[in-house]
Amino acid sequence: MEAALMIPSLIVSLIYGQGDAMAFVYAILISVAVAVAPAFFVKPAREDLNPKDGIAVAGLSWIVLSFFGALPAWISGAIPSLTDAYFETVSGFTTTGATILSEIESLPRGILFWRAFTHWIGGMGVLVLTVALLPRLSGRTAQLTKAESPGPTFSKILPRTSDTAKMLYGIYFGLSLLLFVVLLIAGMNVYDALIHTFSTAGTGGFSNYNNSVAAFQSPAIEWILATFMLLYGVNFTLYFYMIRREFKQAVKNEELWVYLGCIMLATLVITINVLPRFDGFGEAVRAAFFQVTAIVSTTGFVTQDFDLWPSFCKIILLLMMFMGGCAGSTGGGFKVSRLVMLVKNGFREVKQAIHPRKVSVVRLEGKAVPETVLTHAAGFLFFYIALWLVGGLLLSMDNIGVVEAITAAETCISNVGPALGALGPTQNFGILSNFSKWVCSFLMLAGRLEFLPILCLFSVSIWRKNG
Amino acid sequence: MEAALMIPSLIVSLIYGQGDAMAFVYAILISVAVAVAPAFFVKPAREDLNPKDGIAVAGLSWIVLSFFGALPAWISGAIPSLTDAYFETVSGFTTTGATILSEIESLPRGILFWRAFTHWIGGMGVLVLTVALLPRLSGRTAQLTKAESPGPTFSKILPRTSDTAKMLYGIYFGLSLLLFVVLLIAGMNVYDALIHTFSTAGTGGFSNYNNSVAAFQSPAIEWILATFMLLYGVNFTLYFYMIRREFKQAVKNEELWVYLGCIMLATLVITINVLPRFDGFGEAVRAAFFQVTAIVSTTGFVTQDFDLWPSFCKIILLLMMFMGGCAGSTGGGFKVSRLVMLVKNGFREVKQAIHPRKVSVVRLEGKAVPETVLTHAAGFLFFYIALWLVGGLLLSMDNIGVVEAITAAETCISNVGPALGALGPTQNFGILSNFSKWVCSFLMLAGRLEFLPILCLFSVSIWRKNG
Repeated sequence: MEAALMIPSLIVSLIYGQGDAMAFVYAILISVAVAVAPAFFVKPAREDLNPKDGIAVAGLSWIVLSFFGALPAWISGAIPSLTDAYFETVSGFTTTGATILSEIESLPRGILFWRAFTHWIGGMGVLVLTVALLPRLSGRTAQLTKAESPGPTFSKILPRTSDTAKMLYGIYFGLSLLLFVVLLIAGMNVYDALIHTFSTAGTGGFSNYNNSVAAFQSPAIEWILATFMLLYGVNFTLYFYMIRREFKQAVKNEELWVYLGCIMLATLVITINVLPRFDGFGEAVRAAFFQVTAIVSTTGFVTQDFDLWPSFCKIILLLMMFMGGCAGSTGGGFKVSRLVMLVKNGFREVKQAIHPRKVSVVRLEGKAVPETVLTHAAGFLFFYIALWLVGGLLLSMDNIGVVEAITAAETCISNVGPALGALGPTQNFGILSNFSKWVCSFLMLAGRLEFLPILCLFSVSIWRKNG
Repeated sequence: MEAALMIPSLIVSLIYGQGDAMAFVYAILISVAVAVAPAFFVKPAREDLNPKDGIAVAGLSWIVLSFFGALPAWISGAIPSLTDAYFETVSGFTTTGATILSEIESLPRGILFWRAFTHWIGGMGVLVLTVALLPRLSGRTAQLTKAESPGPTFSKILPRTSDTAKMLYGIYFGLSLLLFVVLLIAGMNVYDALIHTFSTAGTGGFSNYNNSVAAFQSPAIEWILATFMLLYGVNFTLYFYMIRREFKQAVKNEELWVYLGCIMLATLVITINVLPRFDGFGEAVRAAFFQVTAIVSTTGFVTQDFDLWPSFCKIILLLMMFMGGCAGSTGGGFKVSRLVMLVKNGFREVKQAIHPRKVSVVRLEGKAVPETVLTHAAGFLFFYIALWLVGGLLLSMDNIGVVEAITAAETCISNVGPALGALGPTQNFGILSNFSKWVCSFLMLAGRLEFLPILCLFSVSIWRKNG
């Protein structure tokens, strides 16, 4: 399937004829060969997958797909190091957008197309995960999930998983098409518009320009991309409600309002703080709004070197990085709904300390949130913090500062892209050692799959035949 | 009571006659007057305290005591700003040891004595909290706690709270006396030995020298203090077991081994990394061991400018800061036992994702940990992270860097003392704005009281008569 997905990139390379077409041909042939070969030698012991296999397959497939995805850039010589090519592809599929490339524009156009296209595939992959795998992990079984998940979940709208997937893809495609057309109208050429559509839809952040979106020097394009980044960070279920004209259902979504509120507040505060750096209020608002949506949707496009902004603005952006988009979006991070639940749970704990005998529940959209859901949100916080700290520690073994180590680990786990300091918005991850690049690749995968599918691979019992 | 506790400091000021004696007299008179006056005007509506009052009293008393504790330094003019004096006293009572003073040695000796003495009082106060208030908060009621708390708790050893308190104070006094004598033998004068005994026992970190413990230039003193910092970070119950010759009980304590293991590992790794900076292995080990114990016990004494060490060492120290000492010690931070429980819970979640139908429990010292205890540990993590992030955000409004803002918030919540960068081990908190100093004071109090008693004060219902 991945081989088939490479064909558009092959066509692009053939159109521009920069000598990278053969790399795609080889990569496609290798992918197909490896996929088909085992069928001749190994006979699967059984056809059905149990939950253990399901979770292992989810974790492994992203790791393996990234390897094959790295082949075109490596074979063509565009990225000569396999570690670098793998990092770049993981960054693509996980829709992170961190790059090891300092000189992007000199790469063949077919390779750049594939690089952005991995974002688009990754965004779809995340939606599949959200539908198929993650609900089972967080609620143990699909039956439980339906009853237990607070707020709008896909499973509640359409009973069959395949229908839900179709609906999600429809929205994903539709929004992408809309963005593509709007970008063309705003003056982008077809190639640039496709690249930036892919990157925005997956909330990835790869651009084909060294200066990212700043290269266009176009306020219109910045406003358009900022708006669409915001839209791709919203729970896709809400678009479905809107299509069915159930606007009330969409509007009463608590997560949406927290998400929009945080974006507005952050934009306002940053605008005030960076005002002296810009010619007038309009420019400052645009810069602030663009960076806030780019970070909170975990896209990571850049129009400003926010590493030069005051510490206060930088910490706001780090908080937005941590929070990330809404559940059921292509955005990464901790997710707004989890944060809302944990904050409400915190308030409840304070209340219960005062009135130990009063029993109270956490409510989301008027409904009581089951304790198991809260427990899983708290467990998610633990995994996030644990990987953040351990990742930061491992990265600090490299020749970088404390800020670089901590923010790089965060930006990888949240699948955003840029960090601060020497790994900031105008810099790249190329300065890191190979070991650090593997650490980052691991963090990106772990964050994108919401920890468990990747962490499970470290368990001995998942590799046992009868575990 | 606080007035009575000021008397030793008054005596010290009279001995040295540096003109600060009158400040203590005024402070004592004011404290007594404020304490006694209400009795003449207000008649308490009822004599008994309900849980709501208990938690409010715990939170308020530390705030109020810090205000009266700030009077001597303020009245004497040693610290002319009330904000500064309050910060310094909160830092004392919460056993943090962060200071706004750049020139410590010029202060009157009575004031410096009181400053260190607040650490010693704070350390005792923490032990009382551990016995009386916090078990009720984490297990809802005392009855529940006994059954639910894993590992050794005070309530299990002696049935009556007053007996437990006496036993704890006995150990606290005994260890202090031992340290005092050992410091005298190592060559300290009586005054210095008292100050450093108080600071070590409370795991505070105030010294009467600008260069902290480095001022003594004595390897013996550094080894002694490092050892005692380590000892004060251990669960005091274990000393009680040892007094009763139940060595087996003490040795099988899981938290102890994790604590010692982390200290040894951190010391080893840091030693290897800082080796080129020292003349030989012995000096490097001493420096590393001293800084690791100073940080993990949340004392915060300094012999080295670890801000100049490699990022890797700095992040190890930040992790130690986060972890803190064992439960039931005078140390602050997240506490080793909570961390052990959450890590084990993390492993369980991975296991359950693989085998959804298998029911498993988290075990500590061979016994199953009840789910409510795990829930509270996870809640504690949430409060820690939330205050850390919000605190860092508020501090970043000051004219400081990202590293300073984040590490200052952490060092205050964990009650350690030094941060990194411009607030590092050789620097002080005097550069902060008044607003930031109040934020830090709040974080120190919140961390020391383990969040709920302080956070409760923000709840409206705690101020209502019939809430």
